[in-house]
Amino acid sequence: MKKILNKPEDYVDEMLAGLTAAHPEYYRLHGDSGKVVARAKTGKDGKVGIVTGGGSGHLPVFTGYVGEGLLDACAIGDVFASPSAEQMADAIRAADSGAGVLRLYGNYGGDVMNFDMAGELVEFEDITCTTVLLADDVASAPPEEAEKRRGVAGMVYAFKMAGAAAEEGRDLEGVTTVAQKAADACRSIGAALSPCTVPQAGKPTFEIAEDEMEMGMGIHGEPGVWRGTLQTADEIAGEMMDRLLADMPLASGDRVSVMVNSLGATPPEELYILYRIVKTRLEDAGATIVMPLVGRYATSMEMAGVSFTLCKLDDELEKLLNAPCDCAFWRVG
Amino acid sequence: MKKILNKPEDYVDEMLAGLTAAHPEYYRLHGDSGKVVARAKTGKDGKVGIVTGGGSGHLPVFTGYVGEGLLDACAIGDVFASPSAEQMADAIRAADSGAGVLRLYGNYGGDVMNFDMAGELVEFEDITCTTVLLADDVASAPPEEAEKRRGVAGMVYAFKMAGAAAEEGRDLEGVTTVAQKAADACRSIGAALSPCTVPQAGKPTFEIAEDEMEMGMGIHGEPGVWRGTLQTADEIAGEMMDRLLADMPLASGDRVSVMVNSLGATPPEELYILYRIVKTRLEDAGATIVMPLVGRYATSMEMAGVSFTLCKLDDELEKLLNAPCDCAFWRVG
Repeated sequence: MKKILNKPEDYVDEMLAGLTAAHPEYYRLHGDSGKVVARAKTGKDGKVGIVTGGGSGHLPVFTGYVGEGLLDACAIGDVFASPSAEQMADAIRAADSGAGVLRLYGNYGGDVMNFDMAGELVEFEDITCTTVLLADDVASAPPEEAEKRRGVAGMVYAFKMAGAAAEEGRDLEGVTTVAQKAADACRSIGAALSPCTVPQAGKPTFEIAEDEMEMGMGIHGEPGVWRGTLQTADEIAGEMMDRLLADMPLASGDRVSVMVNSLGATPPEELYILYRIVKTRLEDAGATIVMPLVGRYATSMEMAGVSFTLCKLDDELEKLLNAPCDCAFWRVG
Repeated sequence: MKKILNKPEDYVDEMLAGLTAAHPEYYRLHGDSGKVVARAKTGKDGKVGIVTGGGSGHLPVFTGYVGEGLLDACAIGDVFASPSAEQMADAIRAADSGAGVLRLYGNYGGDVMNFDMAGELVEFEDITCTTVLLADDVASAPPEEAEKRRGVAGMVYAFKMAGAAAEEGRDLEGVTTVAQKAADACRSIGAALSPCTVPQAGKPTFEIAEDEMEMGMGIHGEPGVWRGTLQTADEIAGEMMDRLLADMPLASGDRVSVMVNSLGATPPEELYILYRIVKTRLEDAGATIVMPLVGRYATSMEMAGVSFTLCKLDDELEKLLNAPCDCAFWRVG
C-alpha cells in the first residue's frame, strides 16, 4: 500500500493542480476554495446543471466525470471525507445557468447533510435545486431498507444518463426524473482483497489476511457480508452475480448494461477473467448486454478488488447511455 | 499482491476470452493457437500491416492496442513470457493484406529470436516483413549502448505513429521509417514501489521493504539504478525528469508529448501529483507539451509504481500522434 505523495495534507490540492494542468480542455477550478471543479467550457445557457460531490480517492469518481454529457461541477473533499456545504454551494453556483441544478450524489451521511445546507445557501440566489441520491450497493442494506444503501459505482450510470438528458435540453423536473430512474435501475456489489491507505491517516483502512477476501465491502472499507478464504475468479463472479440478480431479477428479453470495475489495484486482466462469468450469467437469464464497461470507473485508490454494477435499461435509458459524452476518463460517441 | 484468478495456467486464455467477449467490435482471436488477437474489422486492403507481440500482464500493452490507427494483430505469450514463433507468424498472417508487415516490438531476447523465426516462417508465403525494435528505457543501459535498452511504455507512441502512417496509405518502407523515428524520439524511465505476482510462479517478482522504492526498475522487475528509501512525489518526479532530460536534452521551442503512466496499482490521484513537476520541468526547459497522457498505458498487473516517457515531436510525428485511433483502451480524434 505504498503511496507516492508529498505532504499528506496536500494530497488532494496537488491532485487537483495536476488534473487541471493535464486536462485544461476539460477541467477548471471554480471559486476560492480550490476544491470545486467545473467544466472548462461552460454548458449551454439554459441547460439544467448537474453537480455532485464527495470525498477524494475514487478517481474517476467524482471529479473525473465533469464534462460534456455528464456533470457540470463537483465539490471535492479530502480523501474519503465530505466537502463542506460552502464548497458544495460553489459547485451549485458553477453549474447553474438559470434552469436549476440537480444534486446527484451518493447516499453518505456527511454528503447528505452538507448538500442540504448548500441548497439552503443558494436558495436566496434564486437557484432551484433538486436531489437524487444514489444507493446502489446491495450489500449495504436489505431490499426493504434500500434507502439505507450506500452509493457506489452505479452513480456513473446516473451521471451519464442525467447528463445526456440535460444536454438534450430537458427541464429540471425531466432531468431529475431521469436521474431517479437511472438510480433505481442500478444494483452494485463489491468484493475487496486488500485495503488502501488514506494519506492523512497513514495506515491501511482495514486489516485482512494474505489468503482472505471480503464480499460486499464498501469503497471506504465499510464491512461487507462475509470475510473468508480468497475464492477463485469464477466463484467470486458467480456469487456477485447471484446477489445482484436476487435483488433485481432479469427476465428473457431484458436489456442491461454491466460494469466490471476495478477498485484500483486489480488489473484489467483479472476484470476480463471475471467478465466471462458475468456475460454467461446474463445471457443465461435471457438478457442482452448493452455497452459492457470493463475498467476503472469508481475506485478506492490502490485497493485491490472489484465491483459489478447492473443497470437495467428501457428504451429511454439505453438512448441516454449511448448519447455522446466526453471527459478525460470516459468518452462515448 | 492478491490476484483474482482460476487456475494459474488459464490466466491468459481466460483473459483473452473475456477481452474478446467484452469488445467484439474491436478484437477477435485469429488462428488455432488461441493466442493471436487481430482487429475485428480487417484493415483496408493494401494497407501495411503492423504486428507486435510479447508477454501478457501489461494491459493495455500489447493486445489492447490492436485497433484502427494502431496495430493490426498481436501474438500474446504467457504472463511475462514470449509468444512462440508460430504464434507470431500467425499474427503476421493476420496483419498482412499484401503490402507487407512491420514487426514493431520491445527489445527482449526471447521476442527478438521468435519474431526473427516467425519472419522466416512467412517468407515462403510472400509476406515481406520489416522490423523496428523499441528500446526506450534509459535506466536499462547507458546511451553508448542504447541498442541494449529494453522497450517499455514508449512503444505506445510508436504503435500510434506507425499505425497512423499505415492508415494514411504509406508503403512498408514509409511506415517502417516512421516507426523508427518514433522509437528514436522516445525516452522512458520507471520507478517501482511494490512487485506483482506472475500467476504460474505464485510469488512476487521481487522483494522490497515497506519503506523502499527502486529507481529505474524494469516492467518485469529487472534491476534498476538504485534502491533506497521511498522519496516524496516531487523528489521522484524530479529525478526521473533529470534522467530523461540528461539522455534527451530539450531546447526552447521543442514540442514534446509526455506520458505519466501507472505500472498498475498506483492510482491516478498520484499520477496527477507527479504531473505537476513533469509539466514544470518541461516548461522550464522551454518545451511545449502536446497531448499529455496520464493514466495506465503500459502496466505490470498490480505492480505499484510509475513510468514517465518523453516523445520529442517534429511536425510529422505530431500530426501522426493527433491522427484518429480507436481501441478499447485509447481513442484519439
